[in-house]
Amino acid sequence: MTRSISDLAPALRDVVRDVRTQVSALHAELVRYRLVWGTAGNVSGRIPGTDLFAIKPSGVSYEELAPERMVVCTLNGEKIDDGTPASLVPSSDTAAHAYVYRHMPEVGGVVHTHSPYATAWAARGEAVPCHLTMIADEFGGDIPVGPFALIGDDSIGRGIVETLHGSRSQAVLMQNHGPFTVGRDARSAVKAAVMCEEAARTMCIARQLGNTIPIAPDDVLALNDRYQNVYGQRPSR
Amino acid sequence: MTRSISDLAPALRDVVRDVRTQVSALHAELVRYRLVWGTAGNVSGRIPGTDLFAIKPSGVSYEELAPERMVVCTLNGEKIDDGTPASLVPSSDTAAHAYVYRHMPEVGGVVHTHSPYATAWAARGEAVPCHLTMIADEFGGDIPVGPFALIGDDSIGRGIVETLHGSRSQAVLMQNHGPFTVGRDARSAVKAAVMCEEAARTMCIARQLGNTIPIAPDDVLALNDRYQNVYGQRPSR
Amino acid sequence: MTRSISDLAPALRDVVRDVRTQVSALHAELVRYRLVWGTAGNVSGRIPGTDLFAIKPSGVSYEELAPERMVVCTLNGEKIDDGTPASLVPSSDTAAHAYVYRHMPEVGGVVHTHSPYATAWAARGEAVPCHLTMIADEFGGDIPVGPFALIGDDSIGRGIVETLHGSRSQAVLMQNHGPFTVGRDARSAVKAAVMCEEAARTMCIARQLGNTIPIAPDDVLALNDRYQNVYGQRPSR
Amino acid sequence: MTRSISDLAPALRDVVRDVRTQVSALHAELVRYRLVWGTAGNVSGRIPGTDLFAIKPSGVSYEELAPERMVVCTLNGEKIDDGTPASLVPSSDTAAHAYVYRHMPEVGGVVHTHSPYATAWAARGEAVPCHLTMIADEFGGDIPVGPFALIGDDSIGRGIVETLHGSRSQAVLMQNHGPFTVGRDARSAVKAAVMCEEAARTMCIARQLGNTIPIAPDDVLALNDRYQNVYGQRPSR
Repeated sequence: MTRSISDLAPALRDVVRDVRTQVSALHAELVRYRLVWGTAGNVSGRIPGTDLFAIKPSGVSYEELAPERMVVCTLNGEKIDDGTPASLVPSSDTAAHAYVYRHMPEVGGVVHTHSPYATAWAARGEAVPCHLTMIADEFGGDIPVGPFALIGDDSIGRGIVETLHGSRSQAVLMQNHGPFTVGRDARSAVKAAVMCEEAARTMCIARQLGNTIPIAPDDVLALNDRYQNVYGQRPSR
Repeated sequence: MTRSISDLAPALRDVVRDVRTQVSALHAELVRYRLVWGTAGNVSGRIPGTDLFAIKPSGVSYEELAPERMVVCTLNGEKIDDGTPASLVPSSDTAAHAYVYRHMPEVGGVVHTHSPYATAWAARGEAVPCHLTMIADEFGGDIPVGPFALIGDDSIGRGIVETLHGSRSQAVLMQNHGPFTVGRDARSAVKAAVMCEEAARTMCIARQLGNTIPIAPDDVLALNDRYQNVYGQRPSR
Repeated sequence: MTRSISDLAPALRDVVRDVRTQVSALHAELVRYRLVWGTAGNVSGRIPGTDLFAIKPSGVSYEELAPERMVVCTLNGEKIDDGTPASLVPSSDTAAHAYVYRHMPEVGGVVHTHSPYATAWAARGEAVPCHLTMIADEFGGDIPVGPFALIGDDSIGRGIVETLHGSRSQAVLMQNHGPFTVGRDARSAVKAAVMCEEAARTMCIARQLGNTIPIAPDDVLALNDRYQNVYGQRPSR
Repeated sequence: MTRSISDLAPALRDVVRDVRTQVSALHAELVRYRLVWGTAGNVSGRIPGTDLFAIKPSGVSYEELAPERMVVCTLNGEKIDDGTPASLVPSSDTAAHAYVYRHMPEVGGVVHTHSPYATAWAARGEAVPCHLTMIADEFGGDIPVGPFALIGDDSIGRGIVETLHGSRSQAVLMQNHGPFTVGRDARSAVKAAVMCEEAARTMCIARQLGNTIPIAPDDVLALNDRYQNVYGQRPSR
């Protein structure tokens, strides 16, 4: 029997509504930072206190998104009765998002784009080298490459999880495909998607000029620790 | 004797009006995605139920377009009495659009731009290689190059049609010139123009970094089949 | 004795006002097409029926421009009493504009920018090769390079005029400096500046990919003749 | 005992308010010229007549900035009682800004960004060569590279000051990190940040095409002297 939002306690239904609102709004950030064209990128967010997440519907343009059109799925990637028409199917990348949520309990948000510079490194199967302090800050090392994987089963999700487990990075470049990023919530995953593209772009421009200078591994770790633990306003982060 | 819109049945006159409205509005998408500068690109749309199509007037800026200024032509590229002033001539690329409509009955829309990355590949006479899943999805293989052809007769149209017939792609890069795209309607042809530029851009960035990794031909076909047949919302596509 | 606008017949004063309005407004096009940053570019227009032209004031930001702040100068580049404060001096490139107006009577508008792609070719002293039909259409051949010249005397103006006289192009790339374009009026010179940057950009992207394919000289001339004489709407051009 | 704004004379409190207003507003210029993404860049301004400066709070997004949220610090980089909540900490780059103000009394504004082209040259540890008149005008020579330095002590500030003291440039590219610029006030430092990125971008594009042509050292100095002393409107600069 299909599960339904109406089975949830009222307080959890409010959480569902909040996550759908956030996930819907965050797609505008992908457009604003020019990470997506057409309908190609998607954001999802885990719904705290449940085994559900909310994700973009498939093939719907960014102008047509709204909180009540975000599709709610189980951690197996199956749409539940969420108040949207039965015909509104979740993103074609839903299986990959679901795999990440099942295997990375600390992750509360997932983003996928075909942002051009990150995707260019993916077309080469080459990691973005950590030759800038901003990459050390955000990613704690190179932005790694995951395997080539066809859509349709768990291959993409497994490639994401295995690659991220061997890295401090919140971003992985799936070969011949594009970046996936994760975060403690959907907003954090979107920030990682923005910074991943910026890192990929700046290092690509640098490479056009010639060789770049590595940062010593100890310095990379020192920068990353400081940024993750000291930077920003304490109360508001 | 010149044909006239007023010869059409009232229901068909409504179709003419709808296609002109759509074709006029779609030029704003070319501007939005930065595919055109000045007056260089053009969109046309076949008028269902007739042997006519509507196309941009020549040399008119995008700000000055309006549905009633879209020029209506026969499939031989001759302007009919469409309510515009006799002096408003159709796009200088009208002969190429007309040739495509005459020889590709499944095509309902044609777009031409000088979008910079696609045009750069055209300046080299090199196909955009299908080394990304998004190119496999959208184009089913490399984006092919058509011959060099001068404007003024059927050379451009013939080059477009012959090249597309040997490919699954909706886009062709005419050598030393720029991309033409087709679709089942004008909106679909505009989407192909946007994705063609995005594919050309991402592969150009990747090439700056070095060699890129091919996708196996069987995987290209599997991705294309899935995308063309499964992706998106069933009712709304 | 300094000349004054008030010496002009009333009908000519209206022409002065119209040219100042056009020249002021055209600077917004430089911003829109991202040809300028800060205060670096300038537009001027010859005032028909007089030996005067109107030009941007020096070092004033684009947001602060207005028709009544455009400085009116003689063809020797000397500011006349034009109603602006004595302290409002004309663009530091005024001598170059004036030289062009003195030596090219068919020119009614001049534009100078540091638009990045055209300036990049200028940093190399390399002409933009005419390997695209859009360059043949607009420029009738390569976009030529003029000599290195210091600001402060007629060197820049002389370099522009001598280079343009050996070419069909409306644009010249002054070595180590940037592009100057001319036209029958200021609007036409701005269009040439936009297309010069677009040509420089597209050919730069193509060069990143490898060698590009020339267009045969006869075809270049055929394209240019057609575009200059047939393209667009007859009455409105 | 912590110092407080309320210890200042009323006239100086007005100056504090004006500088905070300017510094807050100038961050919008960084966004407008696409020099920053997320929260990565910062502007500060010395408060004339005091030993204080105002700077962006750490990790706060550009949309959330306001004059009363600019943090006021001593020239040792310590926040004073400035009316913001005790929890609102200054930019993580505050120590570097403070070091510059302590050691360069002529400097009234400092800007730091990770603007992509300038940062790309920094990733290579290569100065932007002065092969364009606009670079001679603005920077009087190459834009120099400073040492690699970790955040957390005076290393970055010392690297900035030592590098700028050996140059006419208002900008320095800190290796593996990004540009810092200075000016007589915050507005001038922002202008230098914009022009630094534009210089870095144009020279990077030129380099993609091949070798570029140097400008003779005497010509560089002549251009710089003229631009710094003659260009623009006398009264308003």
